Amino acid sequence: MEKLFVIKIGGNVIDNEHSLHQFLSSFASAGGKKILIHGGGKIATKIGDQLGIESKYIDGRRITDEATIDLVTMVYGGLVNKKIVAQLQSLNCNAIGLTGADANIIPAVKRPVKLVDYGFAGDVKSEGINTGILNILLQQNITPVIAPLTHDGKGQILNTNADTIASSLAVALSALYDVRLIYCFEKRGILTDIHDDNSVIELITKDRYQQLLEEKKLFDGIIPKIDNAFSAIDNGVKEVLIGHANDLLQNLTETTKGTLIK
Amino acid sequence: MEKLFVIKIGGNVIDNEHSLHQFLSSFASAGGKKILIHGGGKIATKIGDQLGIESKYIDGRRITDEATIDLVTMVYGGLVNKKIVAQLQSLNCNAIGLTGADANIIPAVKRPVKLVDYGFAGDVKSEGINTGILNILLQQNITPVIAPLTHDGKGQILNTNADTIASSLAVALSALYDVRLIYCFEKRGILTDIHDDNSVIELITKDRYQQLLEEKKLFDGIIPKIDNAFSAIDNGVKEVLIGHANDLLQNLTETTKGTLIK
Repeated sequence: MEKLFVIKIGGNVIDNEHSLHQFLSSFASAGGKKILIHGGGKIATKIGDQLGIESKYIDGRRITDEATIDLVTMVYGGLVNKKIVAQLQSLNCNAIGLTGADANIIPAVKRPVKLVDYGFAGDVKSEGINTGILNILLQQNITPVIAPLTHDGKGQILNTNADTIASSLAVALSALYDVRLIYCFEKRGILTDIHDDNSVIELITKDRYQQLLEEKKLFDGIIPKIDNAFSAIDNGVKEVLIGHANDLLQNLTETTKGTLIK
Repeated sequence: MEKLFVIKIGGNVIDNEHSLHQFLSSFASAGGKKILIHGGGKIATKIGDQLGIESKYIDGRRITDEATIDLVTMVYGGLVNKKIVAQLQSLNCNAIGLTGADANIIPAVKRPVKLVDYGFAGDVKSEGINTGILNILLQQNITPVIAPLTHDGKGQILNTNADTIASSLAVALSALYDVRLIYCFEKRGILTDIHDDNSVIELITKDRYQQLLEEKKLFDGIIPKIDNAFSAIDNGVKEVLIGHANDLLQNLTETTKGTLIK
């Protein structure tokens, strides 16, 4: 099967114009088929403040009320997404900017209200992901750039975690491609010492993960990321790479920088 | 050749939630291949006011400074476009929301500064329109929904007149389809008496147009629209229909309401 890179970038890349341009240059010049998923960054909060829309979070998750879903639809689906697309076009990467509503790529359900009402937050319906149209675009050498928005099929846009979109797309597309899922974050990889950038763990297998857990070598925040990575691998993704944007895209196909999970 | 409807809606449809929903219901249920181009509406001005971005116009054209291009990228490319897409999805119309930057569909040049500096306004490079990807989408029964934004290929999004985008796409696609170009506006058609909604001229041919001009039966504002329509026809478009959204989409393929130009 052909290789496909599913790459997720977050606020640490998006919020800084220089970092973003540097990242997109590497991304554009990396050969092969690829999909970019971007998070929101701080710009939505900034514009929301100017519009008098209060940002509310519970346990680190944004509460998406009606004003907020309009805000993120504008900022993630419009401003951030189209600026990335225009920049990639200038770098000879034929990008197309999409949300999960476009061509019904990522159907979702509004998160059920239990203890917390997250508002217009969407949980991806993984079995409904439309790989067909993504594959048609990829076969045309068009690179999908996907904003963290889905829809409920009933006319409502939903705010959706970009990490989840990345892993859901990676899993769904692993039926058609050898998928490497790449998470760009602010560290150079998974560290055994969070204060030491040189303590990157190069390879995590399931055995090694058990060992690291037993030795309590992993800081709490990273454990869900590793669990998600293994879940993606159990569902067909070839390997997951976690590390810093600058490191990861140099020599995309052969990089060993960052942490490889397989 | 197969028929294709290229339909443009403006502020009078977009600004009113009820009108928009009614229009999209008719649009979704109309059979056949179709492309929707939407203008901006008043929402950009409203949000711009809240963000302290002043709307400047010269001769009815918006001056697009740096803050304004970000504003319209958010509002046209994000909020308006994705809300239309999500609604169409709920109406079983598999829509995909795009700007001219996406898949490089509509390359443009920044309007040269002569007497007036229009800022980030784009003039469509008609010969560069990428009908290939539009055709691939249409063949998948996917309906492109296009925001009035283009790009310069150098990373800059440009604000572009939606009427122009509609006629440029209609002309370019007339190489592949029998195109009917439909402009939805606030009147029921071209009127001989602007105060009498029943004075719709049903058919305008070139001969009839000369006659109407000589008799001074046409009000000034409509003349550029008719000139554009004939220019589209001279360049391959089968016919142009101008009228009110409510009339035009009932029985899309056979409607005779509004003004038909051919």
